[in-house]
Amino acid sequence: MTRVLYDLCGVDEDLRFSPFCWRARYALAHKGLEAELRPWRFNDKEILAFADHDKVPVLVDGEAVVTDSYKILQYLDRTYPKAPLIGEGLAAARARFFKHFAERTLAPAMLRTIIMDLLNAIHPDDRGYFRETREKRFGRTLEEFHSPSRGLAQLDAALEPLRGLLKESEFIDGESPAAADYLVFGNFMWARCVSSADLVSNADPVHAWLERMLDLHGGLGRHAKRITDIEGAYR
Amino acid sequence: MTRVLYDLCGVDEDLRFSPFCWRARYALAHKGLEAELRPWRFNDKEILAFADHDKVPVLVDGEAVVTDSYKILQYLDRTYPKAPLIGEGLAAARARFFKHFAERTLAPAMLRTIIMDLLNAIHPDDRGYFRETREKRFGRTLEEFHSPSRGLAQLDAALEPLRGLLKESEFIDGESPAAADYLVFGNFMWARCVSSADLVSNADPVHAWLERMLDLHGGLGRHAKRITDIEGAYR
Repeated sequence: MTRVLYDLCGVDEDLRFSPFCWRARYALAHKGLEAELRPWRFNDKEILAFADHDKVPVLVDGEAVVTDSYKILQYLDRTYPKAPLIGEGLAAARARFFKHFAERTLAPAMLRTIIMDLLNAIHPDDRGYFRETREKRFGRTLEEFHSPSRGLAQLDAALEPLRGLLKESEFIDGESPAAADYLVFGNFMWARCVSSADLVSNADPVHAWLERMLDLHGGLGRHAKRITDIEGAYR
Repeated sequence: MTRVLYDLCGVDEDLRFSPFCWRARYALAHKGLEAELRPWRFNDKEILAFADHDKVPVLVDGEAVVTDSYKILQYLDRTYPKAPLIGEGLAAARARFFKHFAERTLAPAMLRTIIMDLLNAIHPDDRGYFRETREKRFGRTLEEFHSPSRGLAQLDAALEPLRGLLKESEFIDGESPAAADYLVFGNFMWARCVSSADLVSNADPVHAWLERMLDLHGGLGRHAKRITDIEGAYR
């Protein structure tokens, strides 16, 4: 196979939790494309030297090398135009909002809730790198940043527009899922793989949508390994 | 003229502040359509009996009677397809998010900040109705709900995805504005017309976008009467 996706792995090689990699995996599945998922860890910078990049996902598709999850979605739409992910014109302009909503609104709220679980899920060799880069970014220790009660309250407020939307339609993108769904759902896969935290009540329309997303593409999300599946790893 | 938009007015007949009516006014301007703006007050329910509705905006366009701001945008796209507002397919699915984002995320944050100003801007005959319906909805008095410091903090957090987006493009909908811009901007016109509260710092990319929105369509928003323009009305 000439299609490879470099995918972040954790304490176990089959534990894959990067929200950005999950976007790319769902996007590939949406297009009906297979790819070899090559495990990668934070400290494997030199492995990505060929792509002139230091983060995953990186997609290698024949001759093409594409870095950055959003650019991977754009590349897939350009190269495999059937079943658009981002679409064109107004659709493409609006898709960008969901990227920023996921990264700037949902991710910080989730991170406050799951950061100690996330640290635990990361490979021991990567934990120093993770702690150092994140503590610099937050301006405090991971332990100080960690505040599940505040994180969950933030997340609860942030999901309000999705509740309205998902009462009207099965998916964010309407009757079937596309880029907006995958951009947002990547964050939920991140939390699901590293933590057993209950982020959304089962009476919430967002919960029903999460269940539908987990079932898509042959249960891609539902069958993904979670930290709780690894004996002795969740503490 | 056979095109009429029923538009909420306040303490002064020329003070027009409904966020939903502002959506409709920008949408009409976007299509290059003129309309007579007929002032309406909360207690003028019988005036809208012909539309079988009790809220504004109501658009009368020849034979057509359209209620609800979002349906007005959809109607305008159907009837005047040039210069799409909502668009079709993925664009239309995604546009709905901005409606819910405006109503469920931005409006509550702004309302906590400006509600006493809003009460003051409403026609004295309408204030009893406004107080009664809103206190029932919030489960507390307007004075208890009013909390500018919390409202501004909520708004600051809520605007985060727009900051990312508006660093990349001039408008939410890309190089030129469309429905997503108008759906969100309606809330800012609401606050602008009734209050002098500074909602967004002038170093914020959202501030620059607000300035562009005010200038659109011949300065439609910029020239709108504000409570501060009415002698003795702002206190």
